[in-house]
Amino acid sequence: MTAADPPSRSAPLGELELIRLIRRTAERGSGERVETGIGDDTAVLLPLPGARLLATTDLIVEDVHFRRAWASPFDIGWKAMAVNLSDIAGKGGQPLWALVALALPAPADPAEVEALYEGMRRAAAPHGVAIVGGDTSTSPGGWFVSVTLLGEHDGKPRLRSGAAPGDAVAVTGTLGRSAAGLAALEAGRARLAAVRPAMLETVTRAHLRPTARVAEGRYLGAAAGVHAMMDCSDGLATDLGHICRESHVGARVELDRLPVDPDAREVAGALGADALTWATSGGEDFELLLTCERASVDALRDGLRRATGTALTVVGEIEAVAAGVTFLDAAGEPVTVAPGYEHLSG
Amino acid sequence: MTAADPPSRSAPLGELELIRLIRRTAERGSGERVETGIGDDTAVLLPLPGARLLATTDLIVEDVHFRRAWASPFDIGWKAMAVNLSDIAGKGGQPLWALVALALPAPADPAEVEALYEGMRRAAAPHGVAIVGGDTSTSPGGWFVSVTLLGEHDGKPRLRSGAAPGDAVAVTGTLGRSAAGLAALEAGRARLAAVRPAMLETVTRAHLRPTARVAEGRYLGAAAGVHAMMDCSDGLATDLGHICRESHVGARVELDRLPVDPDAREVAGALGADALTWATSGGEDFELLLTCERASVDALRDGLRRATGTALTVVGEIEAVAAGVTFLDAAGEPVTVAPGYEHLSG
Repeated sequence: MTAADPPSRSAPLGELELIRLIRRTAERGSGERVETGIGDDTAVLLPLPGARLLATTDLIVEDVHFRRAWASPFDIGWKAMAVNLSDIAGKGGQPLWALVALALPAPADPAEVEALYEGMRRAAAPHGVAIVGGDTSTSPGGWFVSVTLLGEHDGKPRLRSGAAPGDAVAVTGTLGRSAAGLAALEAGRARLAAVRPAMLETVTRAHLRPTARVAEGRYLGAAAGVHAMMDCSDGLATDLGHICRESHVGARVELDRLPVDPDAREVAGALGADALTWATSGGEDFELLLTCERASVDALRDGLRRATGTALTVVGEIEAVAAGVTFLDAAGEPVTVAPGYEHLSG
Repeated sequence: MTAADPPSRSAPLGELELIRLIRRTAERGSGERVETGIGDDTAVLLPLPGARLLATTDLIVEDVHFRRAWASPFDIGWKAMAVNLSDIAGKGGQPLWALVALALPAPADPAEVEALYEGMRRAAAPHGVAIVGGDTSTSPGGWFVSVTLLGEHDGKPRLRSGAAPGDAVAVTGTLGRSAAGLAALEAGRARLAAVRPAMLETVTRAHLRPTARVAEGRYLGAAAGVHAMMDCSDGLATDLGHICRESHVGARVELDRLPVDPDAREVAGALGADALTWATSGGEDFELLLTCERASVDALRDGLRRATGTALTVVGEIEAVAAGVTFLDAAGEPVTVAPGYEHLSG
């Protein structure tokens, strides 16, 4: 039943055919403890007795979060899944089951729908995640992909609210690569002729098909000394601000210590842009941001490197005064950095 | 971070303020076993050890599922929650936790956002459901509200695939009221001057603020003799077709036996419309559709009436030949009925 007129264009794909296509694509993934997946009113799932259930939803919208000129349907599906995997990773959990709400302009193109689901499946499968349900609708205004991801944690998840004064602030990997990829896509190849193609490929791929730090989150989320943790999706400035607010503390970050991505530096050089701003405020690097006891830093860094090959870098510390995040330059003077992204703002 | 330009209009409400508003509204509801709700990357929830987890997502889209000329933000929120509650009810489960992905044109109006969440909360609270997470985005094309609802079942959910030849087919309550409400909204009051205002209010309310049969689902989902069950959201013809397909059976329905809603009959009379078509194909009544052993029908009907006050009506039977759903008129002749709604079709 619809409260509006049906779309006037002819449709190559009805809902039943679409669900069959989605089911076929989604079922290529394996799912742990799925009693009933796509094909009934609800998925029926078997949680681990005693484990905590983690649940997160992230929505990506055409011309807000992605442009179809740059992102293929596969890319869009991949990213919609990856941003949710990253939220579960940020809590140190094991992602398990995904549900997908999808709105597309009619008529839907079966090849595009299949590529979208294949992108989601390929992002999810290495982590053992299955697509177990969802909903589809006509969209009067572009693509909307909302993924809800369920996961488990067999211990106590590290929350945004766990930071304590004196904690070290640390991030995994490097920062600024996704923003460099976006800037490269916006600039076009002609303006980047001096940059090696392989490097451009690396940064644009980081933007279009980000990798969630699931193994890193599992390691850090179970390690001694970690107090607060989250994924760094809206940029360090915004996300560390969330930790400060929820923990009623402040933070100081030394810009000199930020692990600015080397490829991002090179792209910034070619474009006359500032890689440091990408690192503080670009967002979408999907690294993990954590606070931990000073005494645990060396063990965490060595352990994470051994377990996953990923670097951990201390960039600042937590302070008792709840005055938000202060960035300091090489001389120790406070500097203003661009804020991260806020939706629904002007 | 956004891949597109920010909205150009001034914004009264940034993301942080919006999340604060949502948190305030959502937290008016009580939540069972919620360790961490809105305000972190993921909700942290405590499932009942040994119970099955049920998960469903339903998306409602402006000008596809509702028109803002008829539906208030409160109505939209209410319905987005109710359609998901109905899915959990259809499996006989206890709904528990909701996540909400919301896209709205910028700038978002705080009063509208609050009314939307208040509608969701008011639909959810009587069932003990809490809103525990979500995401918000700017929308370039109208309102999109996607709700994911999690629930539990401490036994074995009754699936679409459970129907057996010889089963009776039964529905709760009456059919056609929601379609009558939609027709009344489309026609306007002037064409319905002969219909009592209270009756118009009843049918339009059934369309705009449907009630999910949660208690009925809990009763029937635990009762002996029930084989297959689902909520009747896309119309009897479509939904019974789903049961036939998943169970590899057919079904015969006698049109004479359908519990056509009396108010729907009166609205149909005033509009020169066909209430029987609304009952077979209108959809959105959110009654429960089930198949059960013939010998259990009397006990189920009496038990449901005692437990919930709701009627159960046998409308047909399941047949071994997987030939879809056949509707029979008073003379026992097959008749063609309109199909229910399919999204993404022409």
